[in-house]
Amino acid sequence: MESKKFLLEEKDIPTAWYNIVADMKNKPMPPLNPKTKEPLNPEDLYPLFAKELVHQEVNQTDAWIEIPEEVREMYKIWRPTPLVRARGLEKALDTPAHIYFKNESVSPVGSHKLNSSIPQAYYCKKEGVTNITTETGAGQWGASMALAAKHFGLDLAVYMVKVSYNQKPYRRSIMQTFGAEVIASPSMSTRAGRDIITKHPNYQGSLGTAISEAVELAMQTPNCKYVLGSVLNHVMLHQTVIGLEAEKQMEMAGEYPDVVIGCFGGGSNFSGISFPFLRHKLNEGKDIRIVAAEPASCPKLTRGQFQYDFGDEAGYTPLLPMYTLGHNFAPANIHAGGLRYHGAGSIVSQLKKDDYMDAVDIPQLETFEAATLFAQTEGIIPAPESAHAIAAAIREAKQAKEEGKPRTILFNLSGHGLIDMAAYDQYNAGDLTNYALTDEDVAKNLADLEKIIK
Amino acid sequence: MESKKFLLEEKDIPTAWYNIVADMKNKPMPPLNPKTKEPLNPEDLYPLFAKELVHQEVNQTDAWIEIPEEVREMYKIWRPTPLVRARGLEKALDTPAHIYFKNESVSPVGSHKLNSSIPQAYYCKKEGVTNITTETGAGQWGASMALAAKHFGLDLAVYMVKVSYNQKPYRRSIMQTFGAEVIASPSMSTRAGRDIITKHPNYQGSLGTAISEAVELAMQTPNCKYVLGSVLNHVMLHQTVIGLEAEKQMEMAGEYPDVVIGCFGGGSNFSGISFPFLRHKLNEGKDIRIVAAEPASCPKLTRGQFQYDFGDEAGYTPLLPMYTLGHNFAPANIHAGGLRYHGAGSIVSQLKKDDYMDAVDIPQLETFEAATLFAQTEGIIPAPESAHAIAAAIREAKQAKEEGKPRTILFNLSGHGLIDMAAYDQYNAGDLTNYALTDEDVAKNLADLEKIIK
Repeated sequence: MESKKFLLEEKDIPTAWYNIVADMKNKPMPPLNPKTKEPLNPEDLYPLFAKELVHQEVNQTDAWIEIPEEVREMYKIWRPTPLVRARGLEKALDTPAHIYFKNESVSPVGSHKLNSSIPQAYYCKKEGVTNITTETGAGQWGASMALAAKHFGLDLAVYMVKVSYNQKPYRRSIMQTFGAEVIASPSMSTRAGRDIITKHPNYQGSLGTAISEAVELAMQTPNCKYVLGSVLNHVMLHQTVIGLEAEKQMEMAGEYPDVVIGCFGGGSNFSGISFPFLRHKLNEGKDIRIVAAEPASCPKLTRGQFQYDFGDEAGYTPLLPMYTLGHNFAPANIHAGGLRYHGAGSIVSQLKKDDYMDAVDIPQLETFEAATLFAQTEGIIPAPESAHAIAAAIREAKQAKEEGKPRTILFNLSGHGLIDMAAYDQYNAGDLTNYALTDEDVAKNLADLEKIIK
Repeated sequence: MESKKFLLEEKDIPTAWYNIVADMKNKPMPPLNPKTKEPLNPEDLYPLFAKELVHQEVNQTDAWIEIPEEVREMYKIWRPTPLVRARGLEKALDTPAHIYFKNESVSPVGSHKLNSSIPQAYYCKKEGVTNITTETGAGQWGASMALAAKHFGLDLAVYMVKVSYNQKPYRRSIMQTFGAEVIASPSMSTRAGRDIITKHPNYQGSLGTAISEAVELAMQTPNCKYVLGSVLNHVMLHQTVIGLEAEKQMEMAGEYPDVVIGCFGGGSNFSGISFPFLRHKLNEGKDIRIVAAEPASCPKLTRGQFQYDFGDEAGYTPLLPMYTLGHNFAPANIHAGGLRYHGAGSIVSQLKKDDYMDAVDIPQLETFEAATLFAQTEGIIPAPESAHAIAAAIREAKQAKEEGKPRTILFNLSGHGLIDMAAYDQYNAGDLTNYALTDEDVAKNLADLEKIIK
């Protein structure tokens, strides 16, 4: 562990988030009303989201949006986060590549998700909201939202994907310890939940279903808003503090990345690490490769299709332009619960369509192999989600070795895996599989989708 | 969470550990050979421990012992750790007191234990050792030792107290992921383990028993040393980096603590936070209160007796001068597994005897109440062990409020509780108890002890 940290001071926490949409030539296409197929007005979103978050969602002109002082104050609990040169990993791979990672695992709940839960709770509180609902996959978002909601005095109900609710009871307890109510999804507490339980009694849930339930509850509760931990533009916006800090830190290290990697579920940590670097590709044509690392069992960017689709399983949300596997896609029960989502956010989808970024998909066993090597060489046990980024970084480093050329690799360590040890247990016991997804499965689901979204 | 962090730079990581023994007027009494009752020579300890660690163990003259550069390099993975002014907690308590905590939970395994596992592995490696054995209670020490052993290329076997092995499977997985072998103690792999299983088939283990097993295995394995995470002088020494950093940081905050608090198992984190402050009490008569916070169910400092006793349950170790409940004391199955030890280290015992420090004992329910308040106001879920220090700090803050006087309180947050959520679950469900210990239980065990140690 000869690894080297690059540290910033509190004054270096960014004062503004970076809104990449302002710099995009082709803006993301607008969300549509599912009935009329007409673009939505901002006002259409007010019932569901805090107004300021809606304004951020649709802002296509301001490249920089000021971070409120109350939010920056809370960021100081754990930010700025370290950038680390992973010399231990480099040595183990015997690669000429330089590998850097931004360590977002140092937050008190162990992941990057607090970067957005804090401003979302802040804006809700500021607008007089008293109750909020949300969904969570692996529980990283829910735990972060629970901490932020407690701080700002909001009541929070979290629909947690059932497979994670059972696989990751510790994250449920964390949310409860912060005072949140946690419901396994699908549940009998909503129409959406009851419908899918009736059709598929043993269904283990997905982010899509949990979103449906959270949205339904928010719409039926007075003075209640819904908050989301990924996919939406304003979430990507908040996460850019990751990349903005990393940019300064790479400068301290005297290097600039050839490739920037984030694991990919709906896009929040990926956008956070990559958008500030993408800015120079968009504006100055900088030669830099941006790679999203997704699970082979949920490969929307590599094997999905770009089209309008619902953000949730039941079809409550507006239609969003996205790379998707179909909103009714039921992902395999991989341990990277935070990546089990059918679609990619609109901004990322547009950037992918316009060829500003790449994606790779990685089988589950390769991610745990990478995670174990990382743990043993860098001392940090990564979250199964983050292990996808590590695996992609290792592929890059091996390629650099084959080519005998230097390469500067930056990836985001979105969270630690200390609460995911049951997954490591299964891996060590040889009980994990890769969950291969056939072309037929993908095609069938997309054909179904086209029938639904006429 | 308006809390304020005080941060140091990497260059501020101490370059020397503080050896309090050099400054003590009454030195700790020497360890004795159990058969002859004669003081041991350093050479008597060479078979069990690395030589350099033995030299540190018996060093009574050098107040400062240089930290090897390889160790400081590894400390940089997470050190220096933050000092935090807990304004959220202060506000919730409506107290005039100022509460500070040193946040040792930010280490990659989540506790202070790495501070000593790294130098212990380093010195073993340097002396050509290939195998090491140790014990662990809650698993914090074992996880830290596993990381350090992997880094220095040592094979590690860990005897983990059975109650924790079952309550905290995640910590077992962490050790295994770092490549260590983990055995539930008592086990059938040693004579000590077999003996106690034969007598008490359902015995859930204790640190004392696990130490016996680890020592026995070390003595029977070629080129193998035993390492210990607490109790011994050299462990206290390594942990002083905590207090040395905290002292600088309190200076940055412009305050000096009236009271310094650490939770207490064998003494490692307590000594780490308090010895650098005690130095000024010893040398300059500084008016500062030092408080050890121990579980009401395992109260060696508040209700035990100062006398020679074994460090382990089976009686393999030398006789050590300690406050003890008797080496065959079987502590209740509280969740603070790291505090379930019958005795206090020799240095702390002497300091307590000479009245340089106080101790309080705290019932389990009070610790979880304190932990929950801390989590909700400071955003960090503490380890059940650390919650004892928080509870003691809260008592101090309440007292300051009653007296209407200011008080500056510093405690050590020795670890986070993200891997202890099963304990929080039980607390939230109302399933925890206080495990009252009667005076008769204490007296009977001590009477038994006097029969054994003639």
